[in-house]
Amino acid sequence: MDAHLYAVILAGGSGTRFWPLSRHLYPKQLLRITGDETLIQQTMRRVLGCVPAKRVFISTTPAQAEPIRFQLSEWKDELQDNFIIEPEPRNTAPAIALAANELVRRDPQAVMLVLPADHVIKGDRRFRAAVTLGGKLAATGRLVTFGIRPSRPETGYGYIQPNLKVRLASQSGLTGYPVKRFVEKPDASTAGRYLRAGGYFWNSGIFVWRASDILEELTRHQSAIARAMRTICGLQDVGATGSEAARVFRRLPPISIDHAVMERSSRATVIPVDFRWSDVGNWSSLEEVAQRSGAGNVFSGNVVDVDSRNSIIYADQRLVATIGLSDMVVVDTPDATLICPKARSQDVKKVVEILKKQGAPEHLEHRTVFRPWGSYTVLEEGPGYKVKRVTVDPGGRLSLQMHHQRSEHWVVIAGTAQVTCGDRVFTLGVSDSTAIPRQTRHRLENPGTETLHIIEVQNGPYLGEDDIVRFQDDYGRGVKRES
Amino acid sequence: MDAHLYAVILAGGSGTRFWPLSRHLYPKQLLRITGDETLIQQTMRRVLGCVPAKRVFISTTPAQAEPIRFQLSEWKDELQDNFIIEPEPRNTAPAIALAANELVRRDPQAVMLVLPADHVIKGDRRFRAAVTLGGKLAATGRLVTFGIRPSRPETGYGYIQPNLKVRLASQSGLTGYPVKRFVEKPDASTAGRYLRAGGYFWNSGIFVWRASDILEELTRHQSAIARAMRTICGLQDVGATGSEAARVFRRLPPISIDHAVMERSSRATVIPVDFRWSDVGNWSSLEEVAQRSGAGNVFSGNVVDVDSRNSIIYADQRLVATIGLSDMVVVDTPDATLICPKARSQDVKKVVEILKKQGAPEHLEHRTVFRPWGSYTVLEEGPGYKVKRVTVDPGGRLSLQMHHQRSEHWVVIAGTAQVTCGDRVFTLGVSDSTAIPRQTRHRLENPGTETLHIIEVQNGPYLGEDDIVRFQDDYGRGVKRES
Repeated sequence: MDAHLYAVILAGGSGTRFWPLSRHLYPKQLLRITGDETLIQQTMRRVLGCVPAKRVFISTTPAQAEPIRFQLSEWKDELQDNFIIEPEPRNTAPAIALAANELVRRDPQAVMLVLPADHVIKGDRRFRAAVTLGGKLAATGRLVTFGIRPSRPETGYGYIQPNLKVRLASQSGLTGYPVKRFVEKPDASTAGRYLRAGGYFWNSGIFVWRASDILEELTRHQSAIARAMRTICGLQDVGATGSEAARVFRRLPPISIDHAVMERSSRATVIPVDFRWSDVGNWSSLEEVAQRSGAGNVFSGNVVDVDSRNSIIYADQRLVATIGLSDMVVVDTPDATLICPKARSQDVKKVVEILKKQGAPEHLEHRTVFRPWGSYTVLEEGPGYKVKRVTVDPGGRLSLQMHHQRSEHWVVIAGTAQVTCGDRVFTLGVSDSTAIPRQTRHRLENPGTETLHIIEVQNGPYLGEDDIVRFQDDYGRGVKRES
Repeated sequence: MDAHLYAVILAGGSGTRFWPLSRHLYPKQLLRITGDETLIQQTMRRVLGCVPAKRVFISTTPAQAEPIRFQLSEWKDELQDNFIIEPEPRNTAPAIALAANELVRRDPQAVMLVLPADHVIKGDRRFRAAVTLGGKLAATGRLVTFGIRPSRPETGYGYIQPNLKVRLASQSGLTGYPVKRFVEKPDASTAGRYLRAGGYFWNSGIFVWRASDILEELTRHQSAIARAMRTICGLQDVGATGSEAARVFRRLPPISIDHAVMERSSRATVIPVDFRWSDVGNWSSLEEVAQRSGAGNVFSGNVVDVDSRNSIIYADQRLVATIGLSDMVVVDTPDATLICPKARSQDVKKVVEILKKQGAPEHLEHRTVFRPWGSYTVLEEGPGYKVKRVTVDPGGRLSLQMHHQRSEHWVVIAGTAQVTCGDRVFTLGVSDSTAIPRQTRHRLENPGTETLHIIEVQNGPYLGEDDIVRFQDDYGRGVKRES
């Protein structure tokens, strides 16, 4: 391994194209779409073939950081200081600039492998071969992107045309070429022509370059972004609060690194790669990567089917019964179900738009919400009450807090709870319970070694998550100054 | 109204053709399929145009009696003694025999209007006209059935061919004819021929006759059933327990009144009727009676749709999102979802068969189960715990009971609870809670005038409904003899 090679996983997406499995606050990278691990876990394991964990960086948003840390807790120590938080999503150019800035501070010779957290790649050995050749080209100052050989006349991707006459470097059966041109998403007939002609490749969104080189090219082509990065660096050097840097970042134009640099730079380089790749852009693209049954179906969960063909059926805890479906997508989650023909999968975004306009919670988050101490699942809400199942990780504890408008009842259903209620601190075991009156300071913690599960019943006229006053919090969340 | 006219509503069906909305223990008659009332409520209101409530009888099974009493509670006093309980479903002939037996005991001149609880009829005035003519013909000893003019070459119904040359009686534009023959469910080409030829009518399963006449015809054509009825009468006369009569009833062959009597009797009569009728036999037949939107869709509940046509989409509390569906059925319930093309609606029974074989609870009952005191809904079950929302009607109370294996926690979320726990009796208001240790006698009652709602959390190694010892019960359910 190259001692100066770093991986930057772009994990800031807020995808809703896999709604209802993905949500605005729970995007595709966090999903177990294929295989036993989530896409970001698979991506992490993939890059560990190229760099050690302590040289992997996660570029993400404040809202995503918690669930990602949870999913990557296997590498908790190595990743401790490697989260690069974008104050808000501004597309890939600002995110990559921020990461490059950080890498150059740590290692001026840093070479960055940049890759999205939510792609599926089959063929780890060929992936590593491509990264190796990419690193070699990056060391000569090239900005390298991986090109995927098209398998269909896809109109949803950008295409890259290499200058095949110029072979910049070759290794392990792979060759890097200068980019002749980038092509925006083509129409169907153009895409068909590219497919037949050959010599065009899908833009995978995976890059290798020196951090200093991409910053140099950003300075050349995107002076606003480069200037903002220098300002943010300066602010960090004088120890300014994060919110000032955030203010600068938020003013940046949301622009992709392709538009910002790759389409303009004379250093742009493409390696046509030979691993299997899918950006699993919507439900129907799942077929490219998932295991199919005899009739061409992809089933997951509690499905009872009679005679369906070529359909994708995702069930969760509930039962989904299907009869005679053909080329359909069915996705069932605890609070929402989607049904559409595969050919209409792209239109999931229309549903999400409608929900957004309605202010419906189903576009934003799941019934299960992750927190640094564990998670909670809303079992039912009604007028004046809410019922949750709350899990607390071993050693975890919620903030010392108080609610103005609601009382809470806790019944332990597994594990051991240590409860603070007013001045009292006591322990509850399975089938013990306690009541927390409103306007009373309280805390729930798990002193044990197994996960604590409780059922919480809330009562009160207002039950929003924002009725909370925090007095102390282990995870640095907004704490009220005590007067 | 004829002072000797009685209505017998056949409400013993255990329909699963409307699964997952209907369940084995919650059949179609209990569903709000069209309009604001359930089908049995609509049926009750319909017959009240012909007879007063105290002359309406409900023929049903032990399991159905509770939810039916609940749904017909508007006529609680009048119906008090009018439930005729079939020990188990044996098709229509034994059920009708039992009802006829009972009516003759009460009124030897009784005329019975027999009708299924789960049909949809539009046109109450025309229905009443048909009943009036039916009553007139019954008074002459005829066994009258209503024939529906076919609107399509339906292969799912039996057909009746009247002898149109003989007009037995006419009134209000309706005429009764002797039956020439009954035809079993025909094949498609035969059904098409009937439709084109005219003079064939669907067998509606609605009858009018004198109770004594149907018993006479049963004696002639079904001696086993007639004999059993005499035995049951005899047992009732000497005050034998219900279980002895049940034993006799259970040995009867399950046979329809059509096969048992109508197809054999020279008194069979048909009145071709002119009200709109549907037996809503499966999801696709819903279109005959439900309100459709512009694109021909039937939507119910929380549906977000983009571009669907001619589809039936039933949502419950959860969100159902549909895109570009065509001639599909989607039915969502708290624990199961069905998706199929309308043309496959008949095959719902295949799904139910699979679930039955698997022993899956989703074929049997809903998450919400009705009890004489109210209802409960299972919100979640997991290892060692179960969470329920329990509602108790004003003045209702559960049995005085005890569980060997589970403790229970109750939190009041609306209304007032009176709780007996061991020797203590106390009252809980909203946001109060209590814990019931296992092996402790307890009782929950609602002393108030509004419905009581509580959240119950159960803990224990076994949480089946059968871990219950009852010491006293207002509703006559199995009580343990105290030693």
